[in-house]
Amino acid sequence: MADPATPPRLTRRRLLGGTAVAAGAAGAAGIGWGAASLTRRDHDRDPGLDTVAFYGEHQAGIATEPPGHAAFAAYDLAAGTTREDIVGLLKIWTDDAARLTQGMPALADTEPELAARPARLTVTVGFGPRMFAVAGLDQRRPPWCNPLPPFTIDRLDPAWCDGDLLLQICAEEATTVAHAVRVLSKHVKSLVSVRWVQRGFRNAARGQTMRNLMGSVDGTVNIAPGTPDFERLVWDDGAARPWLAGGTSMVLRRIAMNLETWDELDADGRALTVGRTVAEGAPLSGGAEFDEADFGAVDRYGIPKIPPSSHIARAHHAHDGERFLRRGYNYDDAPAPGHVSNSGLLFASFQRDIDTQYLPVQQRLAEFDALNQWTIPVGSAVFAIPPGVPGPGGYLGQQLFEAAATRN
Amino acid sequence: MADPATPPRLTRRRLLGGTAVAAGAAGAAGIGWGAASLTRRDHDRDPGLDTVAFYGEHQAGIATEPPGHAAFAAYDLAAGTTREDIVGLLKIWTDDAARLTQGMPALADTEPELAARPARLTVTVGFGPRMFAVAGLDQRRPPWCNPLPPFTIDRLDPAWCDGDLLLQICAEEATTVAHAVRVLSKHVKSLVSVRWVQRGFRNAARGQTMRNLMGSVDGTVNIAPGTPDFERLVWDDGAARPWLAGGTSMVLRRIAMNLETWDELDADGRALTVGRTVAEGAPLSGGAEFDEADFGAVDRYGIPKIPPSSHIARAHHAHDGERFLRRGYNYDDAPAPGHVSNSGLLFASFQRDIDTQYLPVQQRLAEFDALNQWTIPVGSAVFAIPPGVPGPGGYLGQQLFEAAATRN
Repeated sequence: MADPATPPRLTRRRLLGGTAVAAGAAGAAGIGWGAASLTRRDHDRDPGLDTVAFYGEHQAGIATEPPGHAAFAAYDLAAGTTREDIVGLLKIWTDDAARLTQGMPALADTEPELAARPARLTVTVGFGPRMFAVAGLDQRRPPWCNPLPPFTIDRLDPAWCDGDLLLQICAEEATTVAHAVRVLSKHVKSLVSVRWVQRGFRNAARGQTMRNLMGSVDGTVNIAPGTPDFERLVWDDGAARPWLAGGTSMVLRRIAMNLETWDELDADGRALTVGRTVAEGAPLSGGAEFDEADFGAVDRYGIPKIPPSSHIARAHHAHDGERFLRRGYNYDDAPAPGHVSNSGLLFASFQRDIDTQYLPVQQRLAEFDALNQWTIPVGSAVFAIPPGVPGPGGYLGQQLFEAAATRN
Repeated sequence: MADPATPPRLTRRRLLGGTAVAAGAAGAAGIGWGAASLTRRDHDRDPGLDTVAFYGEHQAGIATEPPGHAAFAAYDLAAGTTREDIVGLLKIWTDDAARLTQGMPALADTEPELAARPARLTVTVGFGPRMFAVAGLDQRRPPWCNPLPPFTIDRLDPAWCDGDLLLQICAEEATTVAHAVRVLSKHVKSLVSVRWVQRGFRNAARGQTMRNLMGSVDGTVNIAPGTPDFERLVWDDGAARPWLAGGTSMVLRRIAMNLETWDELDADGRALTVGRTVAEGAPLSGGAEFDEADFGAVDRYGIPKIPPSSHIARAHHAHDGERFLRRGYNYDDAPAPGHVSNSGLLFASFQRDIDTQYLPVQQRLAEFDALNQWTIPVGSAVFAIPPGVPGPGGYLGQQLFEAAATRN
C-alpha cells in the first residue's frame, strides 16, 4: 500500500504496530487513534476530567479517538445574515469551544457547573455548501462541497439533510455533550436556527472495533491517525485552496437499519452479507479481523470465499486513493408507533476530496451491496471542515474569511 | 431522624459514613448507593465487563447505584392477552434479563456480541394498573397503583404516559442499553406494543450528586440504600399484599425544562428558586451540600434564608414518612422545529406507598413551587415493582401469579 515493494499485509501490520507504540495504547489491534491528541490516562484520576487540546493545525474530533457520545448539529443561517455575522458567530464558537474543551465554562455560561467535566470533549465546526454563498465566498467553495448526488437506495427525509453550519460535539459523557450543544446553539441563536440534531454513541473495549446495532464490527478498515496515509488522505494540503490547508471534508449519512428483517438472518447469512464473520469480524477469506481481505480467494469449488456482492467486497477501495476515515456512531431513538425500535448508524467520514475518495465507493454500494436490503439512507449532509485554530486570538475559518477580506 | 435522641445532622452523617465504608466507595459525600449490589471495581480491568447480580430478594436497578444510561420503556398488552400470556412474557423477560445482566446473550439473541459488555446492566420490571385487570387480578392491585391525579401544573402528552408493563434498563454503556431494550422488546412483540421509550443519562464524579440540565445538583436529599430508613420506606413488607413483599412502586414523570427562560435567571435568582447555592448545592441556610436545610433560619431582618416558596422548602417532607428514593436521569432529545433544545428530567422515584409518601410532596409542589415557572410535567406513569427472583427457576411476578393460581 504505502510501499509497493512490501506485501500489503505486512505493511499494514507494521503501520498498526508502530502507531500503537506511539500512542502508548493497551492493544495493537485497532487503528491506533489519535496518538498526538490523546490525553494520557491515569487510572487513579477521574476520566471525566480528561481533556483534548483545542488549538492545533487541525481541528480536534477527527484524528481524535472517538469517545462514547456524539451529537451532530446542523444550523441554517437566518435570512439577511452577512459575512460579518458569520465571522462573529465563528469567533463565538471558537471562544466557547476553546473554553469548554478544557473544562472551563463558556463566557456567560449559565450552567458553569456542567462545564466542569470535559470528558475528552471535542468541538468540530463545518461549513455547508450554502454558507459559502451567504458569505459571498462561493468562489472559494471546494467543488466537492455540495449535496451528494441522489442514489437509488436513498429514502432521504429533509429533516435529516443538509445544513449551512455543522457542529460535531463528542465526549465520553452525555451530559457534557448536552451542555456543549446547548451553549454553542444558544449563543448564536439570533443568527441561525437549528436544522437537526442527531445523537449517537459507541462503545468498545480499548483497542477493539466498535459494533453497530446489527452486531457487526464497524470501522475495521480505516486509516490510522499519525500515518502518512492519514496525512495524505484526510488533510487538505492547501494547493487548490490555501484557506483549506489542514482542513478536510465530512460526509454524514443517517443510515436506518431494518433490524426486524435483519433478525431473520442467521450468523452465516450475516457473514455472507457483510463478508466478515460476525463473532470475530474476520474476512471470510480467513485470518483475524485486521488481516487484509483476499477478494480473490476461492473455495475448492472455485466459489469466492468473500461473495462479490458482500458489503466489504463492494465497499473495498478500488485503489489506495479511494480510502477515507470512518468515525461513525450508533443511534437508537424512540420508535415510531407500531414499531419496536428506531436504530441505525450515523455514518461520518472524513476525506480530503469527497468526489474522488468517497463517491466512487458510495456509488458502488448504491449500485449493489447485499447489505442494502437492511439499510436505508434517510439523511445526508456534506460539510467543508476548516483547519484548526493555531493558538489563542485566532478563530475557526479565519483562513477563509481573512483571505476573502484581503483579496476580494 | 432514625434515633430521636441524636441530633439529625449527626445521625445522617453517621449513616452516610457507615454506608460508604460498607460500599468501599471512594467518597463519603453521596448517599452511599447500593452497598449490597455493587460489583467491586478493579481499575485494571475493563469496567464494561462489570456485572450486577440479577437474583435476589429485590429487583436490581433500585438500590443499585445508577449507572450513566437508562431507558424506560412502557408496553401495552395486545387485545385478548390472557393471564397465561403475561406469565409467559414474564418468564421470557426473566430469562433474558438473567442472562444479559451477566454478560451472556439472551436465548436466540440475534446479536450475541452486543451482550458481551454488560457494563453493570440492570433490568427492572414493573406492572401498570391495567395489567392487573387484564390478568384478572385487579383485587391484588395495590391501591396506589393508578394514574396519578391530575395536577394544575401538568401539560401531559399521552405519548409519554401510562403503560401496562415497564422495563427500566440501566447500564454504563449506551450500546448495552440499546441491545437490552431491543432484545426484551422483540422477544415479546406478539403480546405487546411499545407505548413509549424514554432514554436518559446522568454523570457525576464518584461520590458526588448528579446535576440536571438546569445545572442544579439533583438528588441530594435521598435515602441511602442499606439503611433502616431505606428498608422501611422503599420495600413493601407484604403485610397487605403478600405477593409484593420485597417489591415497591415507581413513579416516572417526564419533566420538560424551559431552559430559554431559565437562562434569564442569574445564579442568585436560581439559588432563591431552588433553595440551594448553584455551585455547591448547599442549602441557603448554610453549610455544605449534605448538611440539613434549616427552614427556620432567618437573616438579620427576620427574612427566611431559604424562601418558603423555593423548591426545597416545598419539596421537603413534612414528616419522615413522606420520603422516597429518587433515581432520575437527564434527557436531551432532538429539538422541535424553531427550538434550540428539548431537555428535561426523567424523574423516577421508588417508594413503598405512592399515596402516603410521594403524593403529599407532589401536591405541595403542584400548589406552589418557585421552580414550576421553568418546569413542565409532560409525562406521567405509575408502576408496581414486584420483588426480585430469588434464584434460577423462578420468574418475575411469580409471587403475584402463583398466589392467584392457588387462591383464585
